[in-house]
Amino acid sequence: LIERTPIIKLPEYAERESDVTIGGFVEGLRDQRRIQFLIVGDESGSVQTVNLRNDDDPSKLALTEAISSLTTGSVVEVSGKAVQNEKVKLGGLEVRIEDLVLHSLAQPGLPIGMDTNLDTRLDWRYLDLRERKKAHIFDIQTTLESSARNWWGSNGYKEIHSPKLLAHPSEGGSEEFAIPYFGKDAYLAQSPQFYKQMAMAAGFNRVFEIGPVFRANPSFTSRHDTEFTSVDAEISWIDSHHDVMDAEESLLRHALKDVLDKHGVDILANFSNELSEQGGLFEIPTNPFPRISLSDARKMVEETGYIIPANTEDLDPESERILCRLTKERYGSDFVFVTDYPISVRPFYHMRHENNPELTKSYDLLWRGVEITTGAQREHRYDRLKEQIREKGMDEGGLEFYTDFFKYGCPPHGGFGLGLTRMLMKITGMNNVREVTFLYRGPKRLTP
Amino acid sequence: LIERTPIIKLPEYAERESDVTIGGFVEGLRDQRRIQFLIVGDESGSVQTVNLRNDDDPSKLALTEAISSLTTGSVVEVSGKAVQNEKVKLGGLEVRIEDLVLHSLAQPGLPIGMDTNLDTRLDWRYLDLRERKKAHIFDIQTTLESSARNWWGSNGYKEIHSPKLLAHPSEGGSEEFAIPYFGKDAYLAQSPQFYKQMAMAAGFNRVFEIGPVFRANPSFTSRHDTEFTSVDAEISWIDSHHDVMDAEESLLRHALKDVLDKHGVDILANFSNELSEQGGLFEIPTNPFPRISLSDARKMVEETGYIIPANTEDLDPESERILCRLTKERYGSDFVFVTDYPISVRPFYHMRHENNPELTKSYDLLWRGVEITTGAQREHRYDRLKEQIREKGMDEGGLEFYTDFFKYGCPPHGGFGLGLTRMLMKITGMNNVREVTFLYRGPKRLTP
Repeated sequence: LIERTPIIKLPEYAERESDVTIGGFVEGLRDQRRIQFLIVGDESGSVQTVNLRNDDDPSKLALTEAISSLTTGSVVEVSGKAVQNEKVKLGGLEVRIEDLVLHSLAQPGLPIGMDTNLDTRLDWRYLDLRERKKAHIFDIQTTLESSARNWWGSNGYKEIHSPKLLAHPSEGGSEEFAIPYFGKDAYLAQSPQFYKQMAMAAGFNRVFEIGPVFRANPSFTSRHDTEFTSVDAEISWIDSHHDVMDAEESLLRHALKDVLDKHGVDILANFSNELSEQGGLFEIPTNPFPRISLSDARKMVEETGYIIPANTEDLDPESERILCRLTKERYGSDFVFVTDYPISVRPFYHMRHENNPELTKSYDLLWRGVEITTGAQREHRYDRLKEQIREKGMDEGGLEFYTDFFKYGCPPHGGFGLGLTRMLMKITGMNNVREVTFLYRGPKRLTP
Repeated sequence: LIERTPIIKLPEYAERESDVTIGGFVEGLRDQRRIQFLIVGDESGSVQTVNLRNDDDPSKLALTEAISSLTTGSVVEVSGKAVQNEKVKLGGLEVRIEDLVLHSLAQPGLPIGMDTNLDTRLDWRYLDLRERKKAHIFDIQTTLESSARNWWGSNGYKEIHSPKLLAHPSEGGSEEFAIPYFGKDAYLAQSPQFYKQMAMAAGFNRVFEIGPVFRANPSFTSRHDTEFTSVDAEISWIDSHHDVMDAEESLLRHALKDVLDKHGVDILANFSNELSEQGGLFEIPTNPFPRISLSDARKMVEETGYIIPANTEDLDPESERILCRLTKERYGSDFVFVTDYPISVRPFYHMRHENNPELTKSYDLLWRGVEITTGAQREHRYDRLKEQIREKGMDEGGLEFYTDFFKYGCPPHGGFGLGLTRMLMKITGMNNVREVTFLYRGPKRLTP
């Protein structure tokens, strides 16, 4: 390995005037008559490096010329002495260049700058992501996933990788991508849910999966994409959807605490502007997340004077925002579980309440104004499931591949799916899925 | 949650004749005139539960009839007293049934049994996976991945999720799945490699990804599938491919040690037959994995008298087996890195040796006779990369989406891809990818 001193650690070296080697991208060059200032940035920070010209000294000329030829974006390895220099705004220190190795010369003129519009920035996403603030989003993502997996690991979950190539559209065929597949059609998975449930029928007890899902959704909104990372879990031997909520709440508390501990300070430093619109950095509620039935939630919202649109049986986006504001005020929680949706707005496979078959054992989890999860206890009894398919007027034959999972026994179970990018949007305040996805995919975007 | 006592823990309860509740699948029923024997299995083991009939006692009749009606595969919750009973072969204990709750009644007659052929078992994979030995493979997988991610986490890697929907075929278009995509064509990713490299151009320094890749490969062999889980890593600021090998070796030592510590005993118990053909449970070499150049490796193989087929410039499968045998004998290592492949058998983007441009800075890792990894230092210099594309006679224009990544600077970097199922095959001795994949996908298999 080429041993590099992380730029963020240079102050300790500058204090002792030590030799260092740094490596990174050229972020700027001022090539003056007597001195050259070269700004170099790595994944931890940026630093000014300097070369006092002495063009009469032939041994120094090569270095000076090498620096002069550098372009923004080029990758260099710079060796020299780190010294304190109060005049330097960038960290109060500089590196006096003794040697420079050019690893890769950038073409002159980067195609994007500070004021480039989002779509062009996405064209050059690999340059866009060089902004450390943007790369930081993926450090948060790494911690969030790692912490979630550790929690699952300590709680007896198996990790699965369910297939993304399916013989049948997941749920009735809307928003499905079809693929010619050896003379037949295959479909891309819209969700791992049916396969998580299959794992329950296989006796796996508890499973999780973090993986891609695909939606042939033609929308261009700031919340929609055609491919995204879904965070899914499913557990057996539950009494009701409340056990699923318990599991999700524990998981989120654990993972979000790790994010706060590891990145809280950096998130505030990087995203304070973005977060100011939603009341700053998130907090983890000390009390349990409130659980409010949909019908109570609708009452709470309407008591504020807001009229929920007549064609909405659940909550429209404005109601979600109002409800989150109210639960924050009343219960001090940024999270709220909305439970017990009527069967009309839930899929056929949600289990129904024994004492009220019009209501499902289902929930949504709202966080800071948006829905981040849908969860439920599933109907695991073959005959009831078939009945619910018929009641919904759906095609029983087309769903046999799924109902067959339950034909030879399956424990009671439920689970949830969590949107990773929605979480990242709420953590950073970046209000566009394109900014928190490594490489966004939409109806008109398949590159880079 | 329905609190269950794991069946594997029943001995401690039986010792004290305690009350227990177990939950699982009905694995067998002997419904005799005076006594009913019901075998119940959960994810940890199986146990005999018994009901002494007393058909004159009406309060007991319901229980007896409930048991009589049970079918294999049905899901039950059984409460009763655990007692020691030396006569019982299954663990020397039994549970005397006091109460039974039926959660799900299986249709009579499971469609697969002990001697069902593989293809039919795959049709009913969720029943096939109820065999605990098979479910155990996914415990090993969970540990392997979790341990690898922990190692990456401690070594500064970011986790990425690269897109699976691409505008361009990954490498020249063979074995690509094409998808109609909003009036255009998209392609499914064959590898995350180009995007891992893009992350290097973005300054991410080190990344990993565990995710699905797709190959429209029409083969039906025991090692091929059309969708599988790829384990990928990429690191910057390397001196050569040896740094990539160092990283992979450390990763594998860490992850395989965790697998041995956590599952060694169970793997031996479950897979001793399968493993006997390859010399038992794997061991982690104490010495560094040997690194042998391809040309030396070929000499070693040919010195045994084996003649490598004339049309093979690298190693044919038989040579791989011979080489592994030799390195085991000479260096005590089940692993061997084969390095420095000629440019003719490596893709255009592999970096070449400065002092020998006919050889690439590449490697394969062989484990117990099969290749589990391909790795390399990549060519990160834009001009050289373009040159190597021209030399290979490839279409420069079609690769611009990729070469553009390097146009504005990129640090030296390299990485590797590791086949998760090949690892699992070597760990368990199960010699078919279909057995170690949660749900295998092949040219004729898209279900369940």
